[in-house]
This record gives sequence, C-alpha cells and structure tokens, in this order.
Amino acid sequence: MAKRIVIALGGNALGKNLEEQMTAVKTTANAICDLIEDGHEVVIAHGNGPQVGMIQNAFAAYHKANEKSDIMPLSMCVAMSQGYIGYDLQNLIGEELDRRGIKKHCATVLTQVAVDPEDPAFMHPTKPIGAFMTEAEAKKLQAEKGIDVMEDAGRGWRQVVASPKPTEIVEIETVRALMNSNHAVIAAGGGGIPVIWEDKYHLKGVPAVIDKDFASECMAEQLDADMLIILTAVEKVAINYNKPDQKWLSDLTPDEARKYANEGQFAPGSMLPKVQAAVKFAESKPGRTALITLLEKARDGIDGKTGTAVHL
Amino acid sequence: MAKRIVIALGGNALGKNLEEQMTAVKTTANAICDLIEDGHEVVIAHGNGPQVGMIQNAFAAYHKANEKSDIMPLSMCVAMSQGYIGYDLQNLIGEELDRRGIKKHCATVLTQVAVDPEDPAFMHPTKPIGAFMTEAEAKKLQAEKGIDVMEDAGRGWRQVVASPKPTEIVEIETVRALMNSNHAVIAAGGGGIPVIWEDKYHLKGVPAVIDKDFASECMAEQLDADMLIILTAVEKVAINYNKPDQKWLSDLTPDEARKYANEGQFAPGSMLPKVQAAVKFAESKPGRTALITLLEKARDGIDGKTGTAVHL
Repeated sequence: MAKRIVIALGGNALGKNLEEQMTAVKTTANAICDLIEDGHEVVIAHGNGPQVGMIQNAFAAYHKANEKSDIMPLSMCVAMSQGYIGYDLQNLIGEELDRRGIKKHCATVLTQVAVDPEDPAFMHPTKPIGAFMTEAEAKKLQAEKGIDVMEDAGRGWRQVVASPKPTEIVEIETVRALMNSNHAVIAAGGGGIPVIWEDKYHLKGVPAVIDKDFASECMAEQLDADMLIILTAVEKVAINYNKPDQKWLSDLTPDEARKYANEGQFAPGSMLPKVQAAVKFAESKPGRTALITLLEKARDGIDGKTGTAVHL
Repeated sequence: MAKRIVIALGGNALGKNLEEQMTAVKTTANAICDLIEDGHEVVIAHGNGPQVGMIQNAFAAYHKANEKSDIMPLSMCVAMSQGYIGYDLQNLIGEELDRRGIKKHCATVLTQVAVDPEDPAFMHPTKPIGAFMTEAEAKKLQAEKGIDVMEDAGRGWRQVVASPKPTEIVEIETVRALMNSNHAVIAAGGGGIPVIWEDKYHLKGVPAVIDKDFASECMAEQLDADMLIILTAVEKVAINYNKPDQKWLSDLTPDEARKYANEGQFAPGSMLPKVQAAVKFAESKPGRTALITLLEKARDGIDGKTGTAVHL
C-alpha cells in the first residue's frame, strides 16, 4: 500500500568528503528509488554533521588568513551545507529515477526550521562544532563576539551551541506543493537552517544545531505522513546493547520505548534522540508508524519484515 | 495586466558581504514585492560573483591550512552560494509578502544549468575566479589537477574558467510546479550549478561560470515568460556611453540592438551580455519583451515609463 514517507538519512548515507559523498549518495539514491518505485511518496531529510563542520572550518581558516572576511554564522553554514549535499542528492536521485523510467522529479528545498527562543537548550549549549582553538583564541572569541566556547575532551577548545527542538518547518508549503507535483523532495537538510521568530514577521538565524531526526519528525507531522523512517547504522534497536543479554526489538509501543529510554538503554546523542523522535511521531496520531533501521533494509522494514517499528 | 516575469538581479541587489547582503536584499525584497502586489508572477534569478569568489577563497585557505581537505570544485561552490544567497532572499521576500498580507510563499530551488560540452567557450577559458596565487602555486595546480590558470592583470595568478552558454535549466519542472503553486521562486542562482550531460542520464559538474543574464533568459524561455527584466546599475542602456553625444535608449528592436552591439557600443562583460540576452529573449517569440533598468525602476519599466525595452 502506497504510503507518504519522510526519510531521515544518517551520516553514513552521505560520507565525510566529496569522493565518499558521491559513492555513498549513489547507494542512497538507489535505495530511495526502490521506495518510490514501490509507489510511496517520499520526502528526504538528512544530517550534515561532517559537512557543516567542514564548511565552518573553511571559513574559520579564511578568517584567520584574512581578518576582513566575515565570521560565518552557523545558520549560513547550514544553508551552504544544504546546497553542498542537496546538489549531489537531487542529481543522483533524479538520475536513478530517469534510468528506471519513473516520471518523477527530485529537488532540494532550502529549508529554515524555527525553534523556540525560550527553549531551555539555549541556556545550556552542549554541542561542540567547528575548528579547535587554543584557550586564548576561544576566550577572545567569547569576549569579543559573545560566542559560547568549551574545552572538548582534552582535544582543544571549540565553539559550543545549543540543540533546541524544532517547532515548525518554515517552508512546509513549498515541500507540500512539490510533493503534490510529482516530486521526491529533499528538505530540512542538516535539521534545517535554525531560526527564531523575532516578531510576527521576522525570522532570525541563531547559532544552534537542530537534530535532524527531530526536524524530520516535525516535518512528517506537518505533512501528515504515514511513516517516519530514521535510518541508522544498525538494522534494529536493541536493549542491553553490546552486552551478553542484548535483545533486538522489532515492535514497540511508545510507552514501551519510553520505558526503555528512561532506563538508560539508549545512548544520548546516538540512539536516544532517534527513539525519542520515533515515539513523538507514533504518538502524534493513530496510524502513524516510525521505523528505525538500515538504509538497505528500509524496503523490508516498510513491509514489516525487519527494523524496529514504533506505533500505538 | 498581470505578466509572468523572470527577474535577473545584479550584484548591487545583493551586496558583497553578509552585512551588505542583509541591507541590499531588504531593498530588493521590497521592489520585488511591489511587482507581486501588482499581480505579476515572479521568478527571481541572481548573480553570485563576489559570493562564489568568497566561498572559493575560503576553501582555498582551508586547503592551504589542511592539505587533506578537498579542493572544492567550482560547481560545489556555486551550489553553496545558492544556499548562502537564497536563504536571505527567500527569508526577506517571504517576510515582506507576509507584512503586506499577500498570501504567497517564497522558496529557493537548488538549480543545475546544463551547458554544451562542445561549447567553444571551453576551448578559451577567460573568466578569472577565486584566490590569487604565486606563479609556482598556479603551475603546480595546473600540472597536478589540470586546472587552467592565467596571470590576471599584474595582480597575480588565478584559476581561469570557461563561461559557456546555458542550454537547459535542469530543474525547470520544479520551478514551474512552484510557480503554479502560489510561489515567488528563486532559481538559477549564480547562473546555476554548471553541469554537462555525460550520457543520456548522468549530469556532471564542470568548472565553469554561466552568465546569470543568459541563464535567466534560458529560464524565461522555458517558462514561457512574457517579460525578462535584467536589473543593472543604470536606468537605461545608452549608446556613446559617457561621451558628449551619449544617448539613452528607450525602445529597441532586436535588430537595432544587434546593430549597436556590433558597433561596439556595449562593454563586454558588462552591458554587452545583458543586451545579447535581451535580444535573444525578444526574438524567441512574438510578444516577449526584455527590459533593462534599475531595480527601483522595474515597476515603472513594466508600465513602459522608463528603462530600455527590447521587443519585436
């Protein structure tokens, strides 16, 4: 049965540099086209950790070499990363659709994602990003630009930003319009360009990183999707992970998933946000299913043959 | 009368750094919303000269500091510049539409533009881009990466790329779908990500720069637009420019414009490509008008009150 699906691609679907990206995205494009060929409507979101870090590092190196150049705000770096990744993704998905004779288009929507300026995450920035600095460089940046910095695991000092929850995909009507016009849409790349509503009309970029699984969940709700697929490096979610009594999970209610999360079964910054996003989507409306699995198992997962499904 | 209009924004509509961009784009957004308020369907293209140069320079500085990092291909830099510029443009146009109570959306389409691999421009790359190098650095790049380089007006060595003519806006169906779904669309930024068809299915990025006025013209034809507006720094095109017998031109046939062009009346790399793009559009179909004028005169120009109009 044809479903409306939002897919959140993990880092391994994209690679860490240009050459890896081209190879990884080819495999990704194939797997996504399988789902489109099965008749599903597909909207694709993706992470951007290594890519936005690389872009930030490049502009930091440029600013070091040329002090008149802009210190590039993180929101701008995310916008650029959407271009960097979306270009290869739309190109290779479009090519694969053509090769299969599927009369569909693929396009990237430059996407802003709004967050709540009162989100408590802004009080506790925890996500280190960008280049390493000396303590003196970091303290200078903090004093002159009001940028939060911290010492990162003995490796040096880095900028640290908040990871607030998404409240709204700003360009949702654009995604919807393209979805309804025969497009596989790429949107909310890197969790979206992080913005806040300064007043009723004005959106302002903020130095934050939005988790791409939560952004995908938000988008799936707004699009009234049937399914949210969170792709990761394991076929299923496990409890007692990497222990003798490890147990793979196939089917979970939101309550069961929440219970395991509260027991500390899922690693923060890794499986935990995926499970939390899955729970949020499954609870948002009856009939909605979140699936956590490998890219190459997505097709079987949709058919209920593998992966971890979370639903009411 | 409501028209379908493709607008090509010049460099002064965008500014040269982040602060300038924010201010310039605000003015630009206002002028564009005037046209939308008048009932016109608007698709917006823009240049990216300073921006793509800045992005190239940043990655060159990064590669110098960290040799393991990618040498960033020009096509990727253009993709990133579409994110960098499109984000501010769509944000501020969207805001202005909201403020005026116009129920329209604004979105950026990441756009590839195809060129002919046999375009003679590839035999004579003439457009210097990116950072200056020493002769030794340039020769090394040429030997190791096959990149064309040249000495640029006594200021140092630079990469030099071709400026081939656009043959096709790859994402034209995306632009059309959004235009038909109540959107002001931003597309073909920086003349588009330059690509060639390697075979029937595969598009490959090429180190080239596509003139944004020709890309806008190509898009205007493909969209069956009524009008192509090429915005520049003068209200009208002139012959004998800056001479005692200078004469402003209000209305030209393609033949008249071509005659002046052949006389050398228009500066290559400046007014000449604008006039050539205008002629091409005006000749492509009866009823099509190309207008060259200032951003703030666009509204009057559409009404025939100012600017230089080229039509059959």
